[in-house]
Amino acid sequence: MLTLEVKGLSYESKLLEFSKREHKSPPYLRLNPRGKVPTLKDGDFVVYESIAIMTYLERKYPAPPLFGKTAEETGSIWRAISENESYLAGAADKIVRPVFFGKGLDKVDEIQEAASSVREELRAMDTSLQRKDWLIGDAMSAADLAAFPFVQLLLRAASKEAAQPLNLGLMPLAEHFPSIGRWCQRIEAIPNYQRTYPPHWR
Amino acid sequence: MLTLEVKGLSYESKLLEFSKREHKSPPYLRLNPRGKVPTLKDGDFVVYESIAIMTYLERKYPAPPLFGKTAEETGSIWRAISENESYLAGAADKIVRPVFFGKGLDKVDEIQEAASSVREELRAMDTSLQRKDWLIGDAMSAADLAAFPFVQLLLRAASKEAAQPLNLGLMPLAEHFPSIGRWCQRIEAIPNYQRTYPPHWR
Repeated sequence: MLTLEVKGLSYESKLLEFSKREHKSPPYLRLNPRGKVPTLKDGDFVVYESIAIMTYLERKYPAPPLFGKTAEETGSIWRAISENESYLAGAADKIVRPVFFGKGLDKVDEIQEAASSVREELRAMDTSLQRKDWLIGDAMSAADLAAFPFVQLLLRAASKEAAQPLNLGLMPLAEHFPSIGRWCQRIEAIPNYQRTYPPHWR
Repeated sequence: MLTLEVKGLSYESKLLEFSKREHKSPPYLRLNPRGKVPTLKDGDFVVYESIAIMTYLERKYPAPPLFGKTAEETGSIWRAISENESYLAGAADKIVRPVFFGKGLDKVDEIQEAASSVREELRAMDTSLQRKDWLIGDAMSAADLAAFPFVQLLLRAASKEAAQPLNLGLMPLAEHFPSIGRWCQRIEAIPNYQRTYPPHWR
């Protein structure tokens, strides 16, 4: 949805209610057999997996470019996206799942190890954002838009009651990772950002 | 390396010896601070993470196109790559690591669960390859080149002595997944394929 907003595209957003298992309903499974979100339908074409949706939008609606203006920028943006997926997302998952769903909250060592990896990744990101506004190049790119939801998810998990005894060392963000805090504000300044914010998170 | 060969680019390949910790040597860490492989150096530009290297090569050396000729193909190729990373790679890792390094071989339930996921993913891939030569569209794409090494890694693990008591249900490939077997042969027919094959796997 951030990509749609940045590219100024109009769209209709449908929120699926997990508690009603709408993501496993037959009509939705016809669009996305894995029953995961998000899925994009553009005319007759259907694509799922967040990053794949972003590449489709980039190719079909090129302006502004989010995957680089040169081969070098493209490579660096994808390097950042891959690192995000390989090193931040997996560790974040090991914190977010127990905190949100309660299962595995007793595996304190595993959560602490994951929190340490997350802090290490965020520290590197924070250092890089001390010198520039965006993760790669001189403009907002897919690297920023792909990393942002993980940061938000981590902050949401860290603010939950269940996370307090874990001392995750993530909050307040502006104190631990001040440059990431300012980068978040830059992303939140995208016109219509509020439309992309999950309503049930409010 | 498969991407370099498919695009007909000349390159020099340097094999790092893990046993000598060459991937953690100061000169290599200057190229890739994470000390992972592969890394590509093209003139002064350095990029790491396999998929990022492929996107750089695609943008700099567009022919033949490996990430789609239309927006729809691009989206579908990336959807397949993301699914590969999200559902096949993680499960494969839970089999490959114990078999190669011996650690965790006693966690039979976890390995069997991972093997079941891997077989499910390969079955879907096999079904889709019954009707066509390549995973997406009518030509070899990055989706094929990104999935192939995982299939090879799984087969190599499954053929190891340590894997025999596990009955992974992967070998012989031609029996369990005949269409994947023929797809592998099509990839192995890439000119100079042998140059891309890890020499220590022979």
